[in-house]
Amino acid sequence: MEIKPIAYIKTDFKTKFGIPRQSGRVKSCIGTVVFEKEYRSPDYIKGISEFSHLWLLFDFSEAHKEDLSPTVRPPRLGGNKKVGVFASRSPFRPNFIGISSVALIGTECSKEYGTVLKVTGADLLDGTPIYDIKPYVSYTDSHPDAVCSYADIHKDYKLKVVFLNGCENCLGDYELKILTECLADDPRPSYQEDGKTYGMEMFGKDISFSVKGDTLTVSEIKH
Amino acid sequence: MEIKPIAYIKTDFKTKFGIPRQSGRVKSCIGTVVFEKEYRSPDYIKGISEFSHLWLLFDFSEAHKEDLSPTVRPPRLGGNKKVGVFASRSPFRPNFIGISSVALIGTECSKEYGTVLKVTGADLLDGTPIYDIKPYVSYTDSHPDAVCSYADIHKDYKLKVVFLNGCENCLGDYELKILTECLADDPRPSYQEDGKTYGMEMFGKDISFSVKGDTLTVSEIKH
Repeated sequence: MEIKPIAYIKTDFKTKFGIPRQSGRVKSCIGTVVFEKEYRSPDYIKGISEFSHLWLLFDFSEAHKEDLSPTVRPPRLGGNKKVGVFASRSPFRPNFIGISSVALIGTECSKEYGTVLKVTGADLLDGTPIYDIKPYVSYTDSHPDAVCSYADIHKDYKLKVVFLNGCENCLGDYELKILTECLADDPRPSYQEDGKTYGMEMFGKDISFSVKGDTLTVSEIKH
Repeated sequence: MEIKPIAYIKTDFKTKFGIPRQSGRVKSCIGTVVFEKEYRSPDYIKGISEFSHLWLLFDFSEAHKEDLSPTVRPPRLGGNKKVGVFASRSPFRPNFIGISSVALIGTECSKEYGTVLKVTGADLLDGTPIYDIKPYVSYTDSHPDAVCSYADIHKDYKLKVVFLNGCENCLGDYELKILTECLADDPRPSYQEDGKTYGMEMFGKDISFSVKGDTLTVSEIKH
């Protein structure tokens, strides 16, 4: 089946490194869903404001690759335990479609883009193509007591984030909040390399940090 | 993007009419997920049994049509109120992909199909193509307090089901349970036609029923 994007999302995540691995980890982050021209009639979203949450079906656009492995190594398992691709939310799958539940905070009318949706909790790369938007229906979609294997064990995992020498002062409140949430979620590719300095880009700035134990220390934020 | 089925599902729903409109309405119904040949290595599902629920991304295979309307009339609104297609779970969407959360009851090894998944709550037509299987992760996917507009109002809607003249005696316990759950969910196309006799096929039998008020009466079950 051929599928075509119906929208794309604008977010603060301009590079892949640092994006939370599951939706809703960075709750404060505001994303803007911009519809493709043919879907900009407000009819397409009539009544959507009466839902608090939405599903976005999106393109794992940075993960397209030909050679698929049947197993993946979830970063939350330290990168050394394999699980099947269908037992994981890894982007490297036969069909590159992700699902993400986001909170709808409102709609806005924009001259350039028509009506857009403002959402939070969308941990998606800026410009990610969206294939579908569906209302979240709790009586079918919500299973608060579901058993979730390794995802359960690590759900409360958070790093303590420390900024050295007031380097966070160059950020606004919103930026600081998002960055702190992203860093607390541990953006490192695996959990093996304590002490190594990592670089990451966010809000047009270069952020240098290292991790020791449960503490992530930001040493520098450069323009 | 071109997407290809990775599996299909075998269910008791051989015809479209009578299938519950949302997943999990008919909890007893057991479906079997059969992988396409290239995905039958058990590696692809390694660790899946440690999850209680899964997402199926499936093809609304009976809903493919060219002329898409920006609005739909949800049956739960009596068929006379329009909402935007992106504010509905209607199958008639720009990309014909549905999402359904199902409970995983186990895996089975079959000579013919390799390892298959046994799931409940899959209200899908028999033979529906599956594009992806993802583990359900409650900390990101579950929002029990989400506000769901018209879907909230009608979530407890159930008809009382009555069988005339012991016509249910030709069904086994499992069949009777599934049929009763499907009928209680009101399979009529809209809620306008009280008293009309409807026919529906299930378990290779023809079922005749009518609805008056909150009661659905099955008048006949024929082989």
